[in-house]
Amino acid sequence: MRTLLIDAKKVAEQAVREAGASIKSLFDQAIQIHEKDEFGDLVTEADFLAEKIIVEKIGKVFPDHQIHSEEAGDNGLESDWLWQIDPLDGTNNFAMGFPVFSASVALLYKREPVLGVTYEPMADRLYTAVLGEGTLCNEKRIEMNRKPDMSRLTVAWIQGHQVQNEEKAVKLRHYIDVTCKRMIRLWAPTLQWAMLAKGDIDGIVLYNSEGDDLYGGLLMVKEAGGIIFDFSGKEFQGMNSEPYLIACHPEQKEAFLKLVQDGLRGFNAQ
Amino acid sequence: MRTLLIDAKKVAEQAVREAGASIKSLFDQAIQIHEKDEFGDLVTEADFLAEKIIVEKIGKVFPDHQIHSEEAGDNGLESDWLWQIDPLDGTNNFAMGFPVFSASVALLYKREPVLGVTYEPMADRLYTAVLGEGTLCNEKRIEMNRKPDMSRLTVAWIQGHQVQNEEKAVKLRHYIDVTCKRMIRLWAPTLQWAMLAKGDIDGIVLYNSEGDDLYGGLLMVKEAGGIIFDFSGKEFQGMNSEPYLIACHPEQKEAFLKLVQDGLRGFNAQ
Repeated sequence: MRTLLIDAKKVAEQAVREAGASIKSLFDQAIQIHEKDEFGDLVTEADFLAEKIIVEKIGKVFPDHQIHSEEAGDNGLESDWLWQIDPLDGTNNFAMGFPVFSASVALLYKREPVLGVTYEPMADRLYTAVLGEGTLCNEKRIEMNRKPDMSRLTVAWIQGHQVQNEEKAVKLRHYIDVTCKRMIRLWAPTLQWAMLAKGDIDGIVLYNSEGDDLYGGLLMVKEAGGIIFDFSGKEFQGMNSEPYLIACHPEQKEAFLKLVQDGLRGFNAQ
Repeated sequence: MRTLLIDAKKVAEQAVREAGASIKSLFDQAIQIHEKDEFGDLVTEADFLAEKIIVEKIGKVFPDHQIHSEEAGDNGLESDWLWQIDPLDGTNNFAMGFPVFSASVALLYKREPVLGVTYEPMADRLYTAVLGEGTLCNEKRIEMNRKPDMSRLTVAWIQGHQVQNEEKAVKLRHYIDVTCKRMIRLWAPTLQWAMLAKGDIDGIVLYNSEGDDLYGGLLMVKEAGGIIFDFSGKEFQGMNSEPYLIACHPEQKEAFLKLVQDGLRGFNAQ
């Protein structure tokens, strides 16, 4: 496994770097944009190009691994090794000319994330996490931040497509908005996980959002010293099709749990 | 005036480009960050360096013009010409490692904006508006967007420091959040004005936020075909120390006005 992980890391880093460079070269160009679902989600030629680059590179080195990618779906192989590929996370940002997006890959072994790699082309940052070996940004070790005072915190919100106006989601989102210093929503989850691992933000609240972008991010945060738990405080393990999660520094677990539970109860923050 | 504006445009473009390059070179480096007020606003050495570059360049070409810049304040001269300089708009983003910030300059003649220049170093975009001559992004003419359906709109929210938890501000912000497709808050207002002028987003609601970043942005939007009006629908002219403004495509004025007025009344969007 160790040898495979070294090779996997290398090929994943090359693949997301190359995909990211292609995405960047299409940024700010006139490109075709399509709506791919009823939620107004977009897909562009940059998604398909980046996906092709990543899937081909990984498939060449690991021809017997299962690969699941956002646009193309599953490669039909059965394997203990599962690659999850989000070739362009932040497609809506990309399409609207907002320079916040990434190319991202995760590798799971028997459903456990063992490698997460995210490349942010506009800032030229490569984030890599390997199980048991910590998280790196451009080869330097990164770690979670910890601020003493909740009112000074920057918290990222990630939600699924279908919950924008769901009553509990709105209540919680708005509660966080008025309770913390700053709530950020970037519409590029892989970068929010990377920012949390790097200590640039202080926590993530994820409301029923699953997808190919999740597992690499979880690993990045864990390997940077963070914890991940559900809205009842139970540590999050493995995979889940409808996750409700909190990620933060371990010393701030109780404070984040209270924030979310108060928010869900409709506690009046004013 | 015409000759002066040609020179002013040239020096302003050079100044923000050079300042932006300096800011970019300090991005992701370990730099000193200071809190400058009780709202947790930050200032970094990048702010001071960028300010020095811009103020010196402008002062050299226009030694008798009044210059007001964000950190250094006023140069003490009285003149019909007033330069407003926001050397690093998005300091909090810069400091937290989020690559969304700009260097920005506006020139007013007898309190009317006649030139606005904003440089976004991470995306290498130079936005320029000259009164009566339209708005450019990297030398190409840009124009406001117009979408037919409010539920598909992306609306940017800009607010002053002191209103984060003010009841009406919260009500309106949250109403926009659940009514439009996407509400963005970038904490870099100059870029939101530029995105609106470029048609990347569809409107801006500004709640009691004034500052050196405002007047260049207003000009960019007007010169790109947009309109700016207050919460009662009255066209916005000149300067105002506590502005409450809406900016959008003229054909969407009524829809945006209704959005804001419904939001302020606490209309239940659920």
